[in-house]
Amino acid sequence: MKLDVCFTPNDFDTTQYYGYHAVVIDVLRATTSIATACANGCDGLIPVSSIEDANAIKLQNPNVLLAGEREGLLIPGFDLGNSPYEYSREQVAGKTIVLTTTNGTVAMNKVSSAPKVYTMSFANASAVICALHQACENTVIVCAGSAGSFSLEDTLCAGLAADRLSHIAELSDTAMAAQAMYRDFAGNLLKRVLQSSHASYLCRIGFEKDVALCLQQDILDVAPVFKDGIITL
Amino acid sequence: MKLDVCFTPNDFDTTQYYGYHAVVIDVLRATTSIATACANGCDGLIPVSSIEDANAIKLQNPNVLLAGEREGLLIPGFDLGNSPYEYSREQVAGKTIVLTTTNGTVAMNKVSSAPKVYTMSFANASAVICALHQACENTVIVCAGSAGSFSLEDTLCAGLAADRLSHIAELSDTAMAAQAMYRDFAGNLLKRVLQSSHASYLCRIGFEKDVALCLQQDILDVAPVFKDGIITL
Repeated sequence: MKLDVCFTPNDFDTTQYYGYHAVVIDVLRATTSIATACANGCDGLIPVSSIEDANAIKLQNPNVLLAGEREGLLIPGFDLGNSPYEYSREQVAGKTIVLTTTNGTVAMNKVSSAPKVYTMSFANASAVICALHQACENTVIVCAGSAGSFSLEDTLCAGLAADRLSHIAELSDTAMAAQAMYRDFAGNLLKRVLQSSHASYLCRIGFEKDVALCLQQDILDVAPVFKDGIITL
Repeated sequence: MKLDVCFTPNDFDTTQYYGYHAVVIDVLRATTSIATACANGCDGLIPVSSIEDANAIKLQNPNVLLAGEREGLLIPGFDLGNSPYEYSREQVAGKTIVLTTTNGTVAMNKVSSAPKVYTMSFANASAVICALHQACENTVIVCAGSAGSFSLEDTLCAGLAADRLSHIAELSDTAMAAQAMYRDFAGNLLKRVLQSSHASYLCRIGFEKDVALCLQQDILDVAPVFKDGIITL
């Protein structure tokens, strides 16, 4: 299998990656919240790119929960923000969640034509890596990035996957780069990621606990799959 | 000082980096050849984006040497290719060289409005890092990349600079990423870079010795500066 990494969704090209399985990573915080929601028994998550799209679904189906963020904060009128702490079993079990975030849900919709799309975070890394290992198909990991730019924490999570799969996968230059970054950061992940721009921003607006949670590895044994417009297990 | 890294010239934005000093890196092989030519006494190098531009300068000044590559190979009718081995004292001393390469010279012209533009490679890394240290100005390192895409070897060289300057510089997320990559690769740089796409390509077309030379660190004590259309010491 070939393993490639796109540092931002803009680097994903449908033609170049035709037939590739895809993995979307948005560590802070969308794909961590998605893994949490799936582990806590939600029926599924529908990622949409705009608040308008989310509201339109709610009009047709008043039972859905509206969730997401803009600039890291709860969207007025929505049920849930983007903190994994909000996606408790009490809140999400048996519910369908419509999710719109600045980077993660945009990336998911960009790669939706891939034959298989997983969502990954540090929290559920091993579960997704295990699924990729079993499938052994060409795979592209798409980092959601930060408003179109490079995201340190997403790339580090991609690097964890590259490192774990390097014995069976042919790594692209970006996959080798991500692997090397992860190996250098691994011993001190949280402390060093706290120096990055998006983690610093989340701390400033009061989400330091979220950052710490989102950097914990393998606390959730779920490999969510995005198919036909909805994320489920 | 702030230190930022652009993985490709497309990431360089004139407004965002207004007032920043700039460093262009094209390890394989343009900025290594430039450092070699400067160390061997050439009068200056004029980087141009197209073969037509190079030929136009030669028409006006028949004494210049035409140099560069397309797809790694000598351009028909040109005096020199892009191998640092060609830029010997016998060939270049006292000469002005007009250089056009696929990535490096394009990157230089993109950042030419910066108040100071250095060209850097592993071969002359410490000389440029020393100049950056002394200036202590906000700096952006622009990796020439490979046809608009990420280049492992250029980013590793940027990471060397980030690592050496980290005690006085505030590193951006991409600078921290490059630093981590460099630290993981440092013990085994040549062997691992040989696995990258552009190094593999150069080996296939017969330039394995060039790759080995271009990965040698601090063999040239020059810090070339690009100013008013020409690279000199």
